[in-house]
Amino acid sequence: MKFQAIQLLFFLGISAVFGFAKDAKPTSKPILNQKTQVRLVDYIKPFVGTKGEGNTYPGPSTPFGMAQFGPDTENSLWATASGYDYRDTSIMGFSCTHLSGTGIPDLGDFLFMPQTGDPKFVPGSKEDPDSGYRQRYSHDNESAYCGYYQVMLENGVNVELTAADRSGIMRFTFPTSDQASIMTDLHHQLHGKRFKIIWSHLRVEDSQTVTGFHLVNGWGKERYIYFAAKYSRPFDDHLIMADGKPHIYDTYRFRSRNEASGQNLQFLAKYKTKKDEVIQVKIGISPVGANNAMMNLDAEIPHWDFKKVVAQTQEKWEKELQMAEIEGSLKEKETFYTALYHAFLTPNVYQDINGEFRGLDYNIHKAQGYTRYSVFSLWDTYRATHPLFNLLQPKRNADMINSMLTHYDQSVDKLLPVWELNGNETWCMIGYHAVPVIVDAYIKGISEFDSIRAYEAIKTTAMNPDYDSVATFAKIGYVPFDKENESLSKTLEYAFDDYCIAQMAKALGKTEDYNYFMKRAGNYKNIFDPSTGWMRPKDSNGNWRTPFDPHDYGGGAANFGDITEGTSAQYSWYVPHDVPGLISLMDGKDAFIKRLDELFTYKGKVSTGEDNEDEGRIGEYWHGNEPSHHIIYLYSYAGQPSKAAQRIHEVIRSQYGNRPDSLSGNDDCGQMSAWYIFSVMGFYPVCPGSSHYTIGSPCLPKVAMRLGNGKDLVIQANGLSEKNIYVQSLKVNGKDWNNPFLPHNEIKDGGKLVFTMGPKPSKWGTAPVIPD
Amino acid sequence: MKFQAIQLLFFLGISAVFGFAKDAKPTSKPILNQKTQVRLVDYIKPFVGTKGEGNTYPGPSTPFGMAQFGPDTENSLWATASGYDYRDTSIMGFSCTHLSGTGIPDLGDFLFMPQTGDPKFVPGSKEDPDSGYRQRYSHDNESAYCGYYQVMLENGVNVELTAADRSGIMRFTFPTSDQASIMTDLHHQLHGKRFKIIWSHLRVEDSQTVTGFHLVNGWGKERYIYFAAKYSRPFDDHLIMADGKPHIYDTYRFRSRNEASGQNLQFLAKYKTKKDEVIQVKIGISPVGANNAMMNLDAEIPHWDFKKVVAQTQEKWEKELQMAEIEGSLKEKETFYTALYHAFLTPNVYQDINGEFRGLDYNIHKAQGYTRYSVFSLWDTYRATHPLFNLLQPKRNADMINSMLTHYDQSVDKLLPVWELNGNETWCMIGYHAVPVIVDAYIKGISEFDSIRAYEAIKTTAMNPDYDSVATFAKIGYVPFDKENESLSKTLEYAFDDYCIAQMAKALGKTEDYNYFMKRAGNYKNIFDPSTGWMRPKDSNGNWRTPFDPHDYGGGAANFGDITEGTSAQYSWYVPHDVPGLISLMDGKDAFIKRLDELFTYKGKVSTGEDNEDEGRIGEYWHGNEPSHHIIYLYSYAGQPSKAAQRIHEVIRSQYGNRPDSLSGNDDCGQMSAWYIFSVMGFYPVCPGSSHYTIGSPCLPKVAMRLGNGKDLVIQANGLSEKNIYVQSLKVNGKDWNNPFLPHNEIKDGGKLVFTMGPKPSKWGTAPVIPD
Repeated sequence: MKFQAIQLLFFLGISAVFGFAKDAKPTSKPILNQKTQVRLVDYIKPFVGTKGEGNTYPGPSTPFGMAQFGPDTENSLWATASGYDYRDTSIMGFSCTHLSGTGIPDLGDFLFMPQTGDPKFVPGSKEDPDSGYRQRYSHDNESAYCGYYQVMLENGVNVELTAADRSGIMRFTFPTSDQASIMTDLHHQLHGKRFKIIWSHLRVEDSQTVTGFHLVNGWGKERYIYFAAKYSRPFDDHLIMADGKPHIYDTYRFRSRNEASGQNLQFLAKYKTKKDEVIQVKIGISPVGANNAMMNLDAEIPHWDFKKVVAQTQEKWEKELQMAEIEGSLKEKETFYTALYHAFLTPNVYQDINGEFRGLDYNIHKAQGYTRYSVFSLWDTYRATHPLFNLLQPKRNADMINSMLTHYDQSVDKLLPVWELNGNETWCMIGYHAVPVIVDAYIKGISEFDSIRAYEAIKTTAMNPDYDSVATFAKIGYVPFDKENESLSKTLEYAFDDYCIAQMAKALGKTEDYNYFMKRAGNYKNIFDPSTGWMRPKDSNGNWRTPFDPHDYGGGAANFGDITEGTSAQYSWYVPHDVPGLISLMDGKDAFIKRLDELFTYKGKVSTGEDNEDEGRIGEYWHGNEPSHHIIYLYSYAGQPSKAAQRIHEVIRSQYGNRPDSLSGNDDCGQMSAWYIFSVMGFYPVCPGSSHYTIGSPCLPKVAMRLGNGKDLVIQANGLSEKNIYVQSLKVNGKDWNNPFLPHNEIKDGGKLVFTMGPKPSKWGTAPVIPD
Repeated sequence: MKFQAIQLLFFLGISAVFGFAKDAKPTSKPILNQKTQVRLVDYIKPFVGTKGEGNTYPGPSTPFGMAQFGPDTENSLWATASGYDYRDTSIMGFSCTHLSGTGIPDLGDFLFMPQTGDPKFVPGSKEDPDSGYRQRYSHDNESAYCGYYQVMLENGVNVELTAADRSGIMRFTFPTSDQASIMTDLHHQLHGKRFKIIWSHLRVEDSQTVTGFHLVNGWGKERYIYFAAKYSRPFDDHLIMADGKPHIYDTYRFRSRNEASGQNLQFLAKYKTKKDEVIQVKIGISPVGANNAMMNLDAEIPHWDFKKVVAQTQEKWEKELQMAEIEGSLKEKETFYTALYHAFLTPNVYQDINGEFRGLDYNIHKAQGYTRYSVFSLWDTYRATHPLFNLLQPKRNADMINSMLTHYDQSVDKLLPVWELNGNETWCMIGYHAVPVIVDAYIKGISEFDSIRAYEAIKTTAMNPDYDSVATFAKIGYVPFDKENESLSKTLEYAFDDYCIAQMAKALGKTEDYNYFMKRAGNYKNIFDPSTGWMRPKDSNGNWRTPFDPHDYGGGAANFGDITEGTSAQYSWYVPHDVPGLISLMDGKDAFIKRLDELFTYKGKVSTGEDNEDEGRIGEYWHGNEPSHHIIYLYSYAGQPSKAAQRIHEVIRSQYGNRPDSLSGNDDCGQMSAWYIFSVMGFYPVCPGSSHYTIGSPCLPKVAMRLGNGKDLVIQANGLSEKNIYVQSLKVNGKDWNNPFLPHNEIKDGGKLVFTMGPKPSKWGTAPVIPD
């Protein structure tokens, strides 16, 4: 019923509203014998970003879902943080949770692997898959669509996966075998060799039901996750392996073959199978307990209809994707909708169907009046992902903020999340970027959170006496490199975060706070070294870091750690809240433009650190990592939007696409994708927490967005072509618009942006007036 | 108010009902300046059993309480299972949970230790206490009363402890010190070197509040316990130690000094103290979560009044002890009430104040309509402890059974508990002795549990296809030693358990089941070897174990493991449900008596195993362990109750008392003490699950019991003296009573037993008629 209603909405509603999409004819083959029809979900290419740096996963997930069922090919390389690399030629198995695009691996909970012949309980190596349960596979026999993944393994078992919000189904089609089995490895994990399974347990509740748990000391230092699995056919027999040995009674002291606890457990469900016999396993997960995992499973998948789950998950995605309609080529549509898909995978719902979740304090809490989200990759996502949510997902973004406030309440340090992962604080990356998320939402009128409580949290966070020399920053005006790692980056990012606090203070009439935090916002100036023209680390006595090379990654081998994943030449642009101030420090607009140009044309060597990757570079500009993400738009601040246009189109062309290797850097829980979404629309939130966007250059002839408040925003780029990339003129809601900044107020209730594009730079935007 | 009411009840009520106790004048000094008055709690000697094999602990606990605060002197010796041995000369610290009288160590959760000077974070050794935080102490500066423990440590800190049900207070009186501190060691545990802390965490919620957790792979394989501690004075500073190092920020990636997770954590609250400055720490515990631990603490101890908690706990004990009034010497009163105290320490309430507990399936459950108990040392306690509860604690015993049924529901093996420990099945010892507990309660009319559900559970347990060769026992009539360890003991105990099932089947009208289980109850005959006259292990082909020596402990070095903690000469008497059958196998009453005599006069060597202890022996009779506990009473079955009288009085005199070394064997969660209680009353439940007791010889001139149903049972032993130990005659409720068996029906609603005692054996009881 519901599905039909949505379908109807799609066919009548969207077509009527936007009046296009009729040309959309997906070439991807129909999924699961559904009728061939125009569906936005068919543009989703789950393999995008799975080859190389993207670190996405190809398995199914619902929008912002808690479960992400998918194949794992690697569990020890940091470069394969999602567990799957398209270049790998064998699969370890299929696990229930994955991170999308992070630079650090974790999750990969509860690996299931169908086997034939003598069962194996160790994964084996990529070099010799036969040394374990690994199976070779070919991309020719692999497919992935929205809500669906399939692969034929070398052992003849065809595997299909689908996922609901907190559960999913694994569908195994076996060949004839006297020794078929489905193994579950609780020891499997996706977090390199540095982390470990602390403890686990398994319970064979009956011959069709298994529950289990593991406690992982991974990126999240103490992460609890439980599962409940139901098998469509009772197993003929079963075996638990513990520490490599069968867990059976040795006649000394009773040991149940139906349960075990330990650090290294596997479960084997044994079968004799006929040709093409299908055995399904449906699995629910929970951070609270096995009973909740079962509750989630029973509520979400109370049947064995695999196709129904696929259809329901596609229906959920279709509804989300209907927020946007674009004109463009098939490649552009696949790129666009896959970017939207990636942006809407994370943060993840982190509560059971009854609202229970495990908090930062490890207690079980119940989310009351909001939905608890997790996986806050804030150093990345404050930039464009959460600003995108403010347009398209305001309710969810408010609940993400409510989740952050709950985290704050439970924090022994009274800190908002830095990088939260399933009820754990990883302390990953730097800054306190929950602040720009909260302030950006507040400034943009998102009201479904308590602003008084939120202000208290952001201020308390910024006044923390212990965290990462914030107190020293406040006292002496910068973070000194002799007292604190990544001092250059921290100084710049704290200054930005403090600007955000000041904006909220101002709006709340807290003048004293406004003045205090605006003063801190200006602290970026204290590490600008006029003698070199770069941001430069300074020690607590005021001495500049010497020697100093602005192209040294991380600050260089000798001083490694001054800069967060970048060079001074990259980080020196990080003053999004006071670009005129930065322009002034850099000797005016002309010098500023010249130096921006040099960034993109730099041909010298950039020394690399272990985390440094070459992909995604244009000169020293590194689109593959977030510190560069706002830089192109700085041209617009200096009166040269045409140079921004050139680089935006270059990046869109060269670093995004519809192929597995199309992402040039970690998608970082959607930040790379959100950059794409904004940029193709023609504007970008250079300074979250401010009330305006910076206009660049649209990359699609037409984009229509149904905003979260139900209003429609339409962007047209008349005359756009491969050559016509320069804005000649712009009308915003019918008004001529020459300033390359777009106030949020102009689009918050929908509206229309009509760009006229041409082959050469025009006068448009060359006299920027930066809004307050 | 409540306390006064109870006091009043005591002074008026009990004195009026029983009409004695006026002579009771405790010599122990008044506790905490309370008025000197006759209180039964003053007879409790918490040190009884702490020296040697008793394995009790001296710290405070409420009746059946969840928390047992107390000193730990040892955490690596199996012989010091409770953590405290009176012979030790230094104390490691004070932990929150302890087991009473078990033979295997566990618990000892969350050790607190006050220090002065440079803080230490490892316990150090007994040989060199200065090598760690251990402190020397003297018994001269140590005291323990009901609900209260005190010791002055060498460092000048006086420590006082008291406990409520799930919480307690530690009261530290410091000397003047610039470096005073209170350390909490989460790595401390009482389970030898074989077990370990799997994981732990600590959170400094504020400067007066700390919460924490550890997961222990101990005797219980996966035991979760949490605490919440409040400090009466904010600490001046604090420090967390992780893996031996200060847990502080190293400037690379933020690390909070206010929280940590890991395998080896300590917390230090730092103070400057004035002379005699008191700092109290009150601590709540929970198996569910830190929030529940805090809830328990806040509900039970919402104040800082240490004396009030002591008074409330004493009040609870006074109420329990008022069930019994005895005449006797001070030593006898101290022995008796301490035995009652020990019998009422375990099983322990195992649910938070809101009813939540962690089940066998590790899920959080809520006890509905009953109280969840834990720590079921069933191989011991089915014998006399639970039968005692059926008289004195029927409601609690019913809830213990309800707890066992919940355990059964959550068991993947559909087995009732064997040896349950805080939501874990340890599989310790043998048999399925939840069965006699349930059946004894049912037969004796305890009705607050579902008999249909209970019968299903006992039958399913006895029909288990996997557990300890029960299925083979059912099939071939005994447990063969080539297939199963402890085969001799298992055969005998299964036969007894099956007798119990048959009794309940009969009562429920299940004739087929009755016949089936009565057949199994007769299986003991299959391992009686007429050629030696002893129970003897047999293999699956029907061959006797050869060589065979009935005095070989455990079956002897070569065949170690045939017998559970004993010799065939001890175990051959284990047919409590068919003593006539055993007499017949042993060639009649005269031979039977002769062989019983030989058991007590045996002077040969008994080869010993590692668990074998010499204490508690009379010949080969070993009162220090449970397999012997019923044996003395077998004389009464053979028409020689005077011989039983002699041995009962000998055991009561030699193996019980009011001193630290008075218990000759592990108290085993009250079984040793329950044997004492029954035996001094003059009867004993040789065969739980039957409807009668076996009469021995009373050891106190008068015992009055207020039964659980409110009725009074009075036992008088007229003429009793050190020499007058033989029953000359008996009147039961006014009727002459010559049969040495006492039907439960005669006393279930109270009544009066009047023994007349004399210096010589009489004709009384020499013509026994064993009830059906």
